[in-house]
Amino acid sequence: MKGKPLVSIVSAGMSRFGKREELYGRELFVEAASEAFKRCPNLNPREDIKAAFIGMMGESFEHQGHTGPTALNWIGLLPTQAFRTEGACGSSATAIRCGLFAILSGLADIALVGGVEKMTHRATAEVTEYLAMACDFPFEQWNGLTFPGLFAMVATAHMHKYGTTEEQMALVAVKNHHHGSMNPKAHMQKEVPLEKALSSRVIAWPLKLYDCSLISDGASCLILTKPELAKKFTDTPVHIIGSGQASDTIGLYERKDFTSLKAGKLAGREAYNMAGVNPSDINVAEVHDCFTIAEIVAYEDLGFCRPGKGGRFIEDGQSQIGGKIATCTSGGLKSKGHPVGATGTAQAYEVYLQLTEEAGKRQVGGAEIGLTHNVGGLGATGVVNIYSRE
Amino acid sequence: MKGKPLVSIVSAGMSRFGKREELYGRELFVEAASEAFKRCPNLNPREDIKAAFIGMMGESFEHQGHTGPTALNWIGLLPTQAFRTEGACGSSATAIRCGLFAILSGLADIALVGGVEKMTHRATAEVTEYLAMACDFPFEQWNGLTFPGLFAMVATAHMHKYGTTEEQMALVAVKNHHHGSMNPKAHMQKEVPLEKALSSRVIAWPLKLYDCSLISDGASCLILTKPELAKKFTDTPVHIIGSGQASDTIGLYERKDFTSLKAGKLAGREAYNMAGVNPSDINVAEVHDCFTIAEIVAYEDLGFCRPGKGGRFIEDGQSQIGGKIATCTSGGLKSKGHPVGATGTAQAYEVYLQLTEEAGKRQVGGAEIGLTHNVGGLGATGVVNIYSRE
Repeated sequence: MKGKPLVSIVSAGMSRFGKREELYGRELFVEAASEAFKRCPNLNPREDIKAAFIGMMGESFEHQGHTGPTALNWIGLLPTQAFRTEGACGSSATAIRCGLFAILSGLADIALVGGVEKMTHRATAEVTEYLAMACDFPFEQWNGLTFPGLFAMVATAHMHKYGTTEEQMALVAVKNHHHGSMNPKAHMQKEVPLEKALSSRVIAWPLKLYDCSLISDGASCLILTKPELAKKFTDTPVHIIGSGQASDTIGLYERKDFTSLKAGKLAGREAYNMAGVNPSDINVAEVHDCFTIAEIVAYEDLGFCRPGKGGRFIEDGQSQIGGKIATCTSGGLKSKGHPVGATGTAQAYEVYLQLTEEAGKRQVGGAEIGLTHNVGGLGATGVVNIYSRE
Repeated sequence: MKGKPLVSIVSAGMSRFGKREELYGRELFVEAASEAFKRCPNLNPREDIKAAFIGMMGESFEHQGHTGPTALNWIGLLPTQAFRTEGACGSSATAIRCGLFAILSGLADIALVGGVEKMTHRATAEVTEYLAMACDFPFEQWNGLTFPGLFAMVATAHMHKYGTTEEQMALVAVKNHHHGSMNPKAHMQKEVPLEKALSSRVIAWPLKLYDCSLISDGASCLILTKPELAKKFTDTPVHIIGSGQASDTIGLYERKDFTSLKAGKLAGREAYNMAGVNPSDINVAEVHDCFTIAEIVAYEDLGFCRPGKGGRFIEDGQSQIGGKIATCTSGGLKSKGHPVGATGTAQAYEVYLQLTEEAGKRQVGGAEIGLTHNVGGLGATGVVNIYSRE
């Protein structure tokens, strides 16, 4: 039986993702928040919003931390309490969790949750180095490991254990770029043919350029409130009916199995139980496709298919729009882009659009239940939320 | 009338603060958590703790972010959900707030909140630069401003408006070093005579070396639970009876008045109202003495004395042990040390010791009500909590 709403999303906003030159992260956050405020004319942001949780991964990008008050300063919400949450690439999914706690605590009836990252003004080597801070320093970074290398180990383990192929991974890229081609806010709005993906240059074998998500700038946010207040602000609230979060070892070197990201799996289980739904009930999902292999692993960890069957799941078209569970309809991290701190709430933004039938060309007809799956680091943080329309 | 408990502290731990060579931050966190677990034999940490919030300011220090799962990994608490909160020097006070939300939400009956920072392995210039990320980049850092300069402007404004003197500021150092000399976990456990403080070299006039807090390594944590569960774990819980948090502009350049830190003031007002107590009810307080002037401003912002009278308050001995409100009995950031992410929960640790009569030589007799005041950046974040013994 479908669970009752925990909290309701009454508005959402997202900046255009991409290479956003001559803008600070705070300005991108203004873009996201302005959309959320505009969508919700009954909200008086400065009066109504009682707490804000903003995910950001790295202060090195802009030599700027203290993101909570900085963002609130620029969107005119001072002196509202503001928090930065950091959970690597899952930073803004942890912000959603904190917003959920704050609302359920009774201390804040309305909360803004969001995320931001400004990355493209940095050289690729710098970006790779800053992102690597989300994995273990003494045992992994120190030895030269960065995320492409770490996820390449996940890919080779998956290939070895289950026979997953480079072509299956490339098909994830093809699908997500196809979806992204229909998203006017996506970083890369163009199709990538299978041949092109497969023949792109190797980054960390078996991962090639088109197996990797994009380095992007962007921001996103949601307005959350108690379900009983939702109708005051919108006729079409989207409810969070299940939510889970778990942690895993910071280093890959401590894990027995590289073919599953346990924190995401546990978070999923918790969210499904709370929501009272099964994987087969999910119509749309945004999963953490930081590398194509990560999406295949996500299918399995979330029970979209059995372990080892992720390669077949994409091959059979089950995860495309029109398939069994339309996955990464936004284009995902792969095509929409991956401004890391913004990703968690951007996933929720897409599900919000799908469940309120505002997803334009990429609309999944009759979508009723959605899911987001956001992981941080090499899955040391995993957050899953399940959403339902009214 | 004294408010009812929001949440209860049933245990607490703190590493020794100081120059902790050849240790990673995660190892310091183990030191803090081990003390907290040892103090609370009825707690089964891995089973009982349902969420953890860890404050840390800067991933640059150890080239290591993703502090939540990293810390939990090392204290054996996986796969418990873990969050890093960042609010600059107020990072772990915001972790306390998140813990409070989580417990009151009903989704986590027991939470670990804490903080950590490893700083002393870096050159002072690097530390100053990393800390500066907590103030505005485009308008302040870019022009060469760092925190000593920012707080020097607060000091000169206070001198100009109220006639506060360099000697009064130095007296804060003298008091806090005296208190710290009785704290076996303090970074500097020695007296500093007034003459020495006044004649120390100028860092950013009027602030001299002994007006500045210390660059330290350290970690601290608390175990929080619902008041109705507290007695299961300890006979001497300490209750949080009031809590407040507010934000202010990230830059000083947008403020009309430099002599007060508004976010701390608003947070204090919220906490007093919730707790149903007045400043005169406070027996012990840990305030944010990152620079001596900040403690003087805190007296005024928290209503310990009237605006402009902070200099007199220290001069008259009102804030020393034995005075009206024993302030920074731990030695404060000034003498105990300031591993920034650890400071908020370390302040709460000291109040916990005072209210459970475990503060040794620096015990304030009959302390019943305590307060912590932690600010981040130049007060862009302010958090105040009020505590009561049973």
